[in-house]
Amino acid sequence: MIPLARYGERIAKAARTAASEGVDALLIGVGADLEYLAGYAAMPLERLTMLVLLAGGPAWLVVPRLEVEPARACPGVVGGYAEVVTWDEIDDPYVLAGSLAALPASGARVGVSHTLWALHLLGLQRALPRAAFELATRVTRQLRMRKDADEIALLRQAAEAADRVVGQVARGRLVGRTEADVAREVRERLLAEGHEQAQFAIVGSGPNSASPHHGASERVIQAGEPIVLDIGGTLGGYHSDMTRTMWVTGGDAALGPDEAFRHLFGILQSAQAAASAAVRPGLACEAVDAIARDRIAAEGYGPNFFHRTGHGIGLEVHEEPYLVAGNAEPLDIGYAFSVEPGIYLEGRYGARIEDIVVCGSDGPIILNVASRDLWVVDG
Amino acid sequence: MIPLARYGERIAKAARTAASEGVDALLIGVGADLEYLAGYAAMPLERLTMLVLLAGGPAWLVVPRLEVEPARACPGVVGGYAEVVTWDEIDDPYVLAGSLAALPASGARVGVSHTLWALHLLGLQRALPRAAFELATRVTRQLRMRKDADEIALLRQAAEAADRVVGQVARGRLVGRTEADVAREVRERLLAEGHEQAQFAIVGSGPNSASPHHGASERVIQAGEPIVLDIGGTLGGYHSDMTRTMWVTGGDAALGPDEAFRHLFGILQSAQAAASAAVRPGLACEAVDAIARDRIAAEGYGPNFFHRTGHGIGLEVHEEPYLVAGNAEPLDIGYAFSVEPGIYLEGRYGARIEDIVVCGSDGPIILNVASRDLWVVDG
Repeated sequence: MIPLARYGERIAKAARTAASEGVDALLIGVGADLEYLAGYAAMPLERLTMLVLLAGGPAWLVVPRLEVEPARACPGVVGGYAEVVTWDEIDDPYVLAGSLAALPASGARVGVSHTLWALHLLGLQRALPRAAFELATRVTRQLRMRKDADEIALLRQAAEAADRVVGQVARGRLVGRTEADVAREVRERLLAEGHEQAQFAIVGSGPNSASPHHGASERVIQAGEPIVLDIGGTLGGYHSDMTRTMWVTGGDAALGPDEAFRHLFGILQSAQAAASAAVRPGLACEAVDAIARDRIAAEGYGPNFFHRTGHGIGLEVHEEPYLVAGNAEPLDIGYAFSVEPGIYLEGRYGARIEDIVVCGSDGPIILNVASRDLWVVDG
Repeated sequence: MIPLARYGERIAKAARTAASEGVDALLIGVGADLEYLAGYAAMPLERLTMLVLLAGGPAWLVVPRLEVEPARACPGVVGGYAEVVTWDEIDDPYVLAGSLAALPASGARVGVSHTLWALHLLGLQRALPRAAFELATRVTRQLRMRKDADEIALLRQAAEAADRVVGQVARGRLVGRTEADVAREVRERLLAEGHEQAQFAIVGSGPNSASPHHGASERVIQAGEPIVLDIGGTLGGYHSDMTRTMWVTGGDAALGPDEAFRHLFGILQSAQAAASAAVRPGLACEAVDAIARDRIAAEGYGPNFFHRTGHGIGLEVHEEPYLVAGNAEPLDIGYAFSVEPGIYLEGRYGARIEDIVVCGSDGPIILNVASRDLWVVDG
């Protein structure tokens, strides 16, 4: 749980940071930035819901009139850190939000949340034709990247719940079932383990394990092939996201992993472990990526690892910082992110290992506790 | 099920409509427009996924390289109606999408999907600084508003599944349970009845029934009060969304609905029925709204019905057309929308009735079959 007063601190810090960045106002729509600042979660819809936060100054939560009660109940409003302003069905909410933003006549800079719909951004650009629009991320990332102890506790709970789900699925029957059926089981188990949302369940069996964002198809799982299981959702608003690779034998020892797969997996495991172990304050995001990538490339699998090594995680499943070539941002205490290299042989098979790692003051804090070995199971 | 060839027809019609509207290219991100045109559903994320559709011309599906396999498997690509183009982690996808759009040097008009994230729209505006951006909705609404027989069949399946869920919940215990617990039951039952996603479950009990978008709280349901149940999700991609109002007696006849509530509900029921019955091609959207509103206002409850009468429904839970004052758009055959007036007495109680209605050639086709009476139940 995030204490009420924390929202006041966050809103105040965002207002100060906006001022120091030269941004006149933040216009934050439905999404993770709004949850972070005001504790207000709503369905993203065509009616505008928007936190209007002035640089250094007060904040308003603009909501459609029929949502005034849930808005009044959110921590940001209950704590007195933002004031609710409602609009009626036939009002123009963009003019309203724009007028609250009280922009200077020239040179105004407005930061909008990155998940704001184009419907709303184009509406705001129409209402504020002279303002320059940019991402509020410039401000919010400075707050959101550094998780506090309460946030890390929620990330840990989510990670451990996902760990348990992978264990449960691995102990059950897999051979003869479709990927989609296993994905359904994963979603049910994530909810049973306390997730309020089971957001995704990649079940990549056989050749599908070579497609990183495969999803789950009607393919029937066979004995003698790998499965990449990449699952996640939210618990207390914070995301789990973890991957383990299994090999199902169907109980027949002759159908265990072949030598080539064991070799590939060994390289992957060593690369994933090395990247996680290197995490410490000051290390560049791209350096973590390079550690995993160089080790995989040195064994000749460079072209078979064609995605970044990881992404930040918190109220969003993907958020800053990104562990990718070209991102020189140094890690700092409290940054939370995935470390998830993979090796994919198209048309044949692939493997990935993913943990959530927090940058501690003197090294990595790895939140997932499930074994990172190849899970050879009867299935 | 939507047949494969339908996606080819949709893409071709969107290209023709863009040309006739003077829009040079449509840039369609993850969301309902993309599902409609290409049959491609993906999680909205920071990596750009985008259908680039030229006016009158070809289409490309731009995807991150790690999603090439699911992209190749979508109907729009399988049918040969769009060609997959991938980008790598360190490429600029906005430059790529912008170059495919092949815009004229001056006066270019670009239509973006309404749910496109600001992250992506600002990226495109940077890559195409001379283009004028507007909503692709101008084009896609002309296709999506008019549901064909396959779409109506899916809407009907979703509506009837939601009808069954309301019936199941009404037959069970309610008194003594929290709203949140009942909402959990609703979600589980929606999935059990074939929904692939249980998107929302408003359970507004007692005074919370007066808050139209209440959600579901930790309030414990009491005997002798109403519950507004507003539930929905997707089945075959198409949405259910229905509301019924119950009164729970706890089995005590003395705790039945009071006279004032019965009176209020009678007015509401007559207004909802009149608005639905009036549906026919050519009637303006605002006229449907006015029929419900005038009847409620005539009884003195005008200020207590403070939201529009309905919204279009299909691949999105809220989509065009909106049944709201000021929308003179005439209904046409195949338009599908909610008809959902409500009467809310703040702090006391409220009621709403919602059906999904399709505009037929000579009148309304009401998809929901559950009774629209006040459901007086033991609970």
